[in-house]
Amino acid sequence: MDEPDLPHLQRLIANSPYLRWLGLEPTSLSRGAVEARARWREDWVANPDLGQTQGGVLASLVDFAASFALFVDLGAPAVTVDLRVDYHRLARRGDLVAQGSVIRRGRRISVCEARVGDLAGRLVASGRGTFLSEG
Amino acid sequence: MDEPDLPHLQRLIANSPYLRWLGLEPTSLSRGAVEARARWREDWVANPDLGQTQGGVLASLVDFAASFALFVDLGAPAVTVDLRVDYHRLARRGDLVAQGSVIRRGRRISVCEARVGDLAGRLVASGRGTFLSEG
Amino acid sequence: MDEPDLPHLQRLIANSPYLRWLGLEPTSLSRGAVEARARWREDWVANPDLGQTQGGVLASLVDFAASFALFVDLGAPAVTVDLRVDYHRLARRGDLVAQGSVIRRGRRISVCEARVGDLAGRLVASGRGTFLSEG
Amino acid sequence: MDEPDLPHLQRLIANSPYLRWLGLEPTSLSRGAVEARARWREDWVANPDLGQTQGGVLASLVDFAASFALFVDLGAPAVTVDLRVDYHRLARRGDLVAQGSVIRRGRRISVCEARVGDLAGRLVASGRGTFLSEG
Repeated sequence: MDEPDLPHLQRLIANSPYLRWLGLEPTSLSRGAVEARARWREDWVANPDLGQTQGGVLASLVDFAASFALFVDLGAPAVTVDLRVDYHRLARRGDLVAQGSVIRRGRRISVCEARVGDLAGRLVASGRGTFLSEG
Repeated sequence: MDEPDLPHLQRLIANSPYLRWLGLEPTSLSRGAVEARARWREDWVANPDLGQTQGGVLASLVDFAASFALFVDLGAPAVTVDLRVDYHRLARRGDLVAQGSVIRRGRRISVCEARVGDLAGRLVASGRGTFLSEG
Repeated sequence: MDEPDLPHLQRLIANSPYLRWLGLEPTSLSRGAVEARARWREDWVANPDLGQTQGGVLASLVDFAASFALFVDLGAPAVTVDLRVDYHRLARRGDLVAQGSVIRRGRRISVCEARVGDLAGRLVASGRGTFLSEG
Repeated sequence: MDEPDLPHLQRLIANSPYLRWLGLEPTSLSRGAVEARARWREDWVANPDLGQTQGGVLASLVDFAASFALFVDLGAPAVTVDLRVDYHRLARRGDLVAQGSVIRRGRRISVCEARVGDLAGRLVASGRGTFLSEG
């Protein structure tokens, strides 16, 4: 497989109903680290009185950024085995930025982490996950 | 506050854009344990070749079921501090059932768990989270 | 390999410097579930003013009980990939009881959980982990 | 309370049976980041054929480094609420180095992470935890 680049990631996102729903747009990419922006939508809101983005959406962004960092590093997809997400503050209405990086790349098992921030640069969630490489 | 009952949970879901998007319908409720069904939608699909539900949707269901089990137990909302989700098998197109229960209810910190299965009764994901009670 | 039984586990513990240090004695064993008792020692104490057992000792008991439940189920060892431990209350001076069970046994990846209680039956810690089967 | 410094941490360790057992020696300290070395002992060994340090010892080091990074930042102790540890490779006989840092310091809830390496600089474990500040 060719090494993944931004157009490659954009095609993967365009092909995925869920990633399209997240409004993802990858903004930078290097070996072992990716960054993407997610376009806010009203469907994300957990409680309309607070307007905060539901935790599952933030978990999706952690999973996406962590697993794409690994994908770019490995040049091959891996399956999410488990995920831990920490919620640091309410994410109010607005786009979010997710950054993923590889902590440890293994032959079968890899561990990656991600941070999700708002456009003011405040950390709203972070986490890490375990990924299994096929084959 | 009155003790939460099914109509109460249904109103909370109806009021939440994200929980409506998840197509949630609570099906049973007792002190410390809840069950809800989530109606599948195409937006959940991570990869159209496999048709599997994206992990963030499963994380949302774990978070929802775990936190609502606590809500019913406490009679008051609590904030998700962190979440761990384990992915056991691909969740193919179809509705899902989430069951939440309380592991340990504390004055400030509580821990709850949840399981998510498909309509054939296969476990597709499970997890646990830490929740902080206000006040 | 023969199916593991109590004498088999006792020999494994007797052979392991760390498990001996934990003072482990398996007390019951069935397919997918084990129970063991750990003999308290002064070395466990984190802070002598409180007398509480350090969290790493509780993590060891979660790891031991979860991985031995899997070992008994699989009839073969597996490697701990990651572990989550929740601390529910201070464990005061005294023996502890750890119970492990299998949540999901997979061909390569399995998930198990464990609970650690004191002799009065109070839950002091619980957790879950991901395990990788060799071969 | 005075801001914690190395002699302060050394006294805390000297006062704790478990931290003494871990053979901990803090080696550097700054606001939000600590490093300590742990002196290997035979009691750490899980399986004498492999000679690897048991996962609970590595969990202890993650907990210690993460919580001491927070302690130095807050100037006050906090309680470990939960811990996640990822095991990256077997830690063979030998001293280990643990580095902790603060991801997000909150008024009540903080999240910290830690890495544990061997003396050759190889990452053997890493993790993160949630901590609750008293008062």
